[in-house]
Amino acid sequence: MPEDQDTRTALTDDELRTLDAHWRAANYLAAGQIYLLANPLLTEPLRPEHIKPRLLGHWGTSPGLNLVYTHLNRVIGARGLDALCIWGPGHGGPSVLANSWLEGSYSEKYPDVGRDAPGMARLFRQFSFPGGVPSHVAPEVPGSIHEGGELGYSLAHAYGAALDNPGLLVACVIGDGEAETGPLAASWHSNKFLDPVHDGAVLPILHLNGYKIANPTVLSRIPEAELDALLHGYGHEPIHVAGDDPALVHRAMARAMDTALDRIATAQRAAREDGATERVSWPVIVLRTPKGWTGPAEVDGVPVENTWRSHQVPLPGVRENPEHLHQLEAWLRSYRPEELFDAEGRPVADVLARVPEGARRLGATPYANGGLLVRELPMPDLDDFAVPVDKPGTTLHEPTRVLGDLLRQVMKDTAGRRDFRLVGPDETASNRLQAVYDVSGKAWQAGTLDVDEHLDPHGRVMEVLSEHLCQGWLEGYLLTGRHGLFSCYEAFVHIVDSMVNQHIKWLKTSRELPWRAPIASLNYLLTSHVWRQDHNGFSHQDPGFVDHVLNKSPEVVRVYLPPDANTLLSVADHVLRSRDYVNVVVAGKQPCFDWLSMDAARVHCARGAGVWEWAGTENSGTPDVVLGCAGDVPTQEVLAAAQLLRRHLPDLAVRVVNVVDLTRLLPRGEHPHGMTDFEYDGLFTTDKPVIFAYHGYPWLIHRLAYRRTGHENLHVRGYKESGTTTTPFDMVVRNDLDRYRLVMDVIDRVPGLAVRAAAVRQRMADARTRHHDWIRAHGTDLPEVAEWNWND
Amino acid sequence: MPEDQDTRTALTDDELRTLDAHWRAANYLAAGQIYLLANPLLTEPLRPEHIKPRLLGHWGTSPGLNLVYTHLNRVIGARGLDALCIWGPGHGGPSVLANSWLEGSYSEKYPDVGRDAPGMARLFRQFSFPGGVPSHVAPEVPGSIHEGGELGYSLAHAYGAALDNPGLLVACVIGDGEAETGPLAASWHSNKFLDPVHDGAVLPILHLNGYKIANPTVLSRIPEAELDALLHGYGHEPIHVAGDDPALVHRAMARAMDTALDRIATAQRAAREDGATERVSWPVIVLRTPKGWTGPAEVDGVPVENTWRSHQVPLPGVRENPEHLHQLEAWLRSYRPEELFDAEGRPVADVLARVPEGARRLGATPYANGGLLVRELPMPDLDDFAVPVDKPGTTLHEPTRVLGDLLRQVMKDTAGRRDFRLVGPDETASNRLQAVYDVSGKAWQAGTLDVDEHLDPHGRVMEVLSEHLCQGWLEGYLLTGRHGLFSCYEAFVHIVDSMVNQHIKWLKTSRELPWRAPIASLNYLLTSHVWRQDHNGFSHQDPGFVDHVLNKSPEVVRVYLPPDANTLLSVADHVLRSRDYVNVVVAGKQPCFDWLSMDAARVHCARGAGVWEWAGTENSGTPDVVLGCAGDVPTQEVLAAAQLLRRHLPDLAVRVVNVVDLTRLLPRGEHPHGMTDFEYDGLFTTDKPVIFAYHGYPWLIHRLAYRRTGHENLHVRGYKESGTTTTPFDMVVRNDLDRYRLVMDVIDRVPGLAVRAAAVRQRMADARTRHHDWIRAHGTDLPEVAEWNWND
Repeated sequence: MPEDQDTRTALTDDELRTLDAHWRAANYLAAGQIYLLANPLLTEPLRPEHIKPRLLGHWGTSPGLNLVYTHLNRVIGARGLDALCIWGPGHGGPSVLANSWLEGSYSEKYPDVGRDAPGMARLFRQFSFPGGVPSHVAPEVPGSIHEGGELGYSLAHAYGAALDNPGLLVACVIGDGEAETGPLAASWHSNKFLDPVHDGAVLPILHLNGYKIANPTVLSRIPEAELDALLHGYGHEPIHVAGDDPALVHRAMARAMDTALDRIATAQRAAREDGATERVSWPVIVLRTPKGWTGPAEVDGVPVENTWRSHQVPLPGVRENPEHLHQLEAWLRSYRPEELFDAEGRPVADVLARVPEGARRLGATPYANGGLLVRELPMPDLDDFAVPVDKPGTTLHEPTRVLGDLLRQVMKDTAGRRDFRLVGPDETASNRLQAVYDVSGKAWQAGTLDVDEHLDPHGRVMEVLSEHLCQGWLEGYLLTGRHGLFSCYEAFVHIVDSMVNQHIKWLKTSRELPWRAPIASLNYLLTSHVWRQDHNGFSHQDPGFVDHVLNKSPEVVRVYLPPDANTLLSVADHVLRSRDYVNVVVAGKQPCFDWLSMDAARVHCARGAGVWEWAGTENSGTPDVVLGCAGDVPTQEVLAAAQLLRRHLPDLAVRVVNVVDLTRLLPRGEHPHGMTDFEYDGLFTTDKPVIFAYHGYPWLIHRLAYRRTGHENLHVRGYKESGTTTTPFDMVVRNDLDRYRLVMDVIDRVPGLAVRAAAVRQRMADARTRHHDWIRAHGTDLPEVAEWNWND
Repeated sequence: MPEDQDTRTALTDDELRTLDAHWRAANYLAAGQIYLLANPLLTEPLRPEHIKPRLLGHWGTSPGLNLVYTHLNRVIGARGLDALCIWGPGHGGPSVLANSWLEGSYSEKYPDVGRDAPGMARLFRQFSFPGGVPSHVAPEVPGSIHEGGELGYSLAHAYGAALDNPGLLVACVIGDGEAETGPLAASWHSNKFLDPVHDGAVLPILHLNGYKIANPTVLSRIPEAELDALLHGYGHEPIHVAGDDPALVHRAMARAMDTALDRIATAQRAAREDGATERVSWPVIVLRTPKGWTGPAEVDGVPVENTWRSHQVPLPGVRENPEHLHQLEAWLRSYRPEELFDAEGRPVADVLARVPEGARRLGATPYANGGLLVRELPMPDLDDFAVPVDKPGTTLHEPTRVLGDLLRQVMKDTAGRRDFRLVGPDETASNRLQAVYDVSGKAWQAGTLDVDEHLDPHGRVMEVLSEHLCQGWLEGYLLTGRHGLFSCYEAFVHIVDSMVNQHIKWLKTSRELPWRAPIASLNYLLTSHVWRQDHNGFSHQDPGFVDHVLNKSPEVVRVYLPPDANTLLSVADHVLRSRDYVNVVVAGKQPCFDWLSMDAARVHCARGAGVWEWAGTENSGTPDVVLGCAGDVPTQEVLAAAQLLRRHLPDLAVRVVNVVDLTRLLPRGEHPHGMTDFEYDGLFTTDKPVIFAYHGYPWLIHRLAYRRTGHENLHVRGYKESGTTTTPFDMVVRNDLDRYRLVMDVIDRVPGLAVRAAAVRQRMADARTRHHDWIRAHGTDLPEVAEWNWND
């Protein structure tokens, strides 16, 4: 499609003048934040003491971001748009701060930083200053849902924000450095999942300023035809804007914005009103402007503007070097601040002429403060989905399949509201959640064949073979006020370790900002877990995501290991209702004994950890040994061990403690869910041996419980990186988590039992040998294990 | 460029017949592995007891992989190529196993699985069977350097293998599922870093069989013109092969292979002989064949071949369902095994007619067993690079800059051999290693401008803004027998958490295979670390990668925290010489006091942990308190605390213990580097308070040391997720790791000191208050901190 240059926007001189004034003002304010401690309006000649002692910030990307902000303002106002912008180059904090101060949204959130000279002084001083604001587009910045310090996720966040927001335009500035990352490269294909009827539009703006920290970028150094082919291949129509003459670039940018928005409007109208079904080739703007544009052209004899040298602070020695100070003053005065701000430091009318009103301002849109928009999720009555349990360990269910029925209902009850999505890397059915397809298909805008099942251009189940996209989409969706669940193979959720770090940091900081309203939690369902990846083998076995998130802020992180179907329902209900958390739920998809009735499950999950009296043999309240367990497979092995002990050592007083909420093990002072010592000692005793069978790496339990009085008696079994393609029971035997080993542990650790129970211990060792022989001969598990049940 | 269909390969009938025989044989053997426990040659009618009790494996991708293997065989033989293939769909294990058994390389590695009927029976039985072999292209598979269970890394591995191997062809099969991942999407641009002179060629084969586990794939469902645009945009020339008629596909595939290899040869000749410098547009083959091709077309009335239903086991109920058994037998007999294998089960001559000889076989190439090729790295004398230290804490150096000089020498000394590379995400200079540019520029094949510095089409420094690519390239490079170092911002190395998991698993398994020779270790230099990301703020602060790797196999994982320049040199020397490890080195880039002379550093690093007598005040060998430290910033704070104690509490006997090798803290039984209790108690005592200042999350130290006698006296300070943009010293104060807090900890924990040293404690608390007031007023650290040195 041609760019229609002649028939599109011709900016009036007045528009050009006011847009340029706004852009210059934003550039001035961005540079001012990096440099100035005082004299914000340059009412006097610049002196060293006006300069910050530590110069921290990123200038290079800022003029380009300011240009985008300025031109988004114009189209938002002119077209009455609801818009949100994702600033991928998040270290361009000075730019977004400058713009939100100009439009007034900053001072509304932070009244101590008024839109006047004292406020400007404070805006400058606080930037990257101790006790002030971070250098990035962090949660503190109004209008942001994306910090961007770690690169790669801007476009996925943009798509997440656009889903189910049909009236929203999500612009997304992608730096050419970020464009080299894997997650960003994959994100371009998100357009195959964007529904032009029920979703909003994403307008990517690929900002090619040519350099990253210290190198040119790939996309800025391939021929334009090759770049165009790439963007066409991604399913986009490129619109180019390039130059370094502000007036020409303003005109070209306005034209590009109008062209893009016209095309978007046409496509949406066709889909919504005319029922068009062909996939839309959405526009993308390619913006080529110099890195550090309008900053110092040369410093100390080397080029700076339009090179990587303008990435951070183009003039580094301002306080000590009079020439640098002089250059800085000339640079700042080049924006003619006296034309932009009145004597009281307020932006003049021309600067604000194209700034939209009220909640339409990018810094004031409620879409960037999703907690303002989020509604309670309609959660059905769990009793309608619970499996009946008259007696523990009698029936089998696949817990995630039971959960699938619940999710089906949630999906159904949100069909009109469209504020719930299920995401996963091609694993929804593998993880046995396919009941949801009864009420929502899988989002899909690419080609279809007769053989396909459950594909739906309007579906709210999202499946793509990229954990990065699943995570990024869901984050964007939640941050704009909706709900969701990410179901993932346990081992491969590590792919998003770094993304969840950033989301947890975002939530931690947001919780401290009174104006940020709580959003729905990010909920993981980790299934196809370490103990049941016996068929895929070692590469699919890793339970370490729990360890990873437990390093992060305890205010934000929650970890649940429901041991059966009803406890999974109870946990799911809890996490889907919760706010501002990252909830990790680890649950099985394989047939698993039902241990607790729905009522018992509710009570047990509310407590987070408790004694399963029916499973133990203590009468007096003083056990000889405690068997602890967390996770579905460890719980089964502990119960089998308890049964063996009951049978072979009937006078041993055994207590079984199941832990659903792992952070209960932490001291109260270290996590809001932590047990008091009184509670912990009541469960685990202070002096009896505790044999604890844990789902993941055993040392995690020690890390949580090392401050407890009885810690020296705590003996933990778990996964220790022994895996291959084998049988389910062989997996637990290989890692010494099996029932026989647990009984041997009890015998080894209960004082006096070693001699008395030597024969029992030998039987257990023999059973392990029998197991080894059997699987090599038959390829299956011992019948006594495969057919085991608690009530035998 | 046209595909030159008419002028290229016309397979002779004999070639076609033998290629098809090989392909049928491989298909037969792949299906046989999934299903058969006995009766491998179908010498009798198939009965249920011939079928495995658990059917585990992935059929869907196997026929396509078999086709590629068959056709690679042809061109390797015909052209005398050295070739390696990366099998991205790694769960197609049955295919690669089948082919290596056919060519004989399998039986050479595993003589008990001979190339005859008993061997075939064993090949079938062992697959996905307890005690047998995994279902994936795991380390156990000859010819593999890539397991591929987790998807995304095949193409990056292929490029890594091709670097500095000018005579090597690296074919890389990319499944269309894997192609949706971020790392794979970014990997296409690796061609901007591949030198046609010194590097080999990568031939990507995008295998579009249309489906992943349960969904169609994006790239198989966009129009071919859009796909071609995408591939052109990636810098490739596509060559298409599509069909389901074997004879036609054989002819088309042979033609495509010849076209691709001719183009590669032409490009390499132009660059090597004619000095051509324009970037090469390398060929890519797009292969469209049905998923599960030649398997059951329908099962139980639904289509299976050419749908996602053939992903794993197309006929699931063979043992129980006579109809399925019948279908399986018909399927297996469709390959006409009696034509393919002689009465003894040996492949007939026709099957082997196009199989290459000896080390040219894909299963026998030494490039897939890099330890056979690796040479000792020429390590220079450290004394030539050491900083002089007459007295601890007198001079300052930037440790990574000192390391940069050493790496410059290594880079120089490998200039002819070209077997050392430095990779990093645009951070080599930021991490102060830029001395290497004196002897090697940065690999770059895209456009250049006059302003660029250090770009070099033949460079061995690799910089791209993708941690995934850095990791993938380096893994491929190491696995094919070379050396390297990955320098990375500490926080963002989490981006490759999941990749390093897989590499550690690979190394762990490889170490157990006698025929796999040890390869060079994967070495990380993590710098720009948590304590000195004060300028970038919270998003850049995360020391958790150490925790992540310490969950993995202790045989493989090593973690070092050198506290100064000379210790960093010693550690670097050690890790660069080592084999089969993943070494994580955390070191600072900011000016840091020099504590140890080169000789002292060597001794200290060899011990891994030791008392710094010069820093303590104990005389009798019995300290009142031990100050432990690990990491450069914690070491500085501990020494400053020791100085404060010496000054204010001169009669307190203080011992300072520095830990370089973190795994020394583990019990000997849990890590090969672990200290015996005797050693540990000798350093830390069994009964004195230990105040330990650690670089990362404090509970990691507890996790390592919880079994030690004195653990209850161990008090650890470290990073606890309190960060923002602030000053360096404020970072340690925020996390209670500062010198003043450490002195307060000592006073609080040494018996009797609380009262006696109350005034000192108050001075420390006052200093913290003074710090808070000072930074808010001045934006810099207290002069007493900024100008501190040990010898005051």
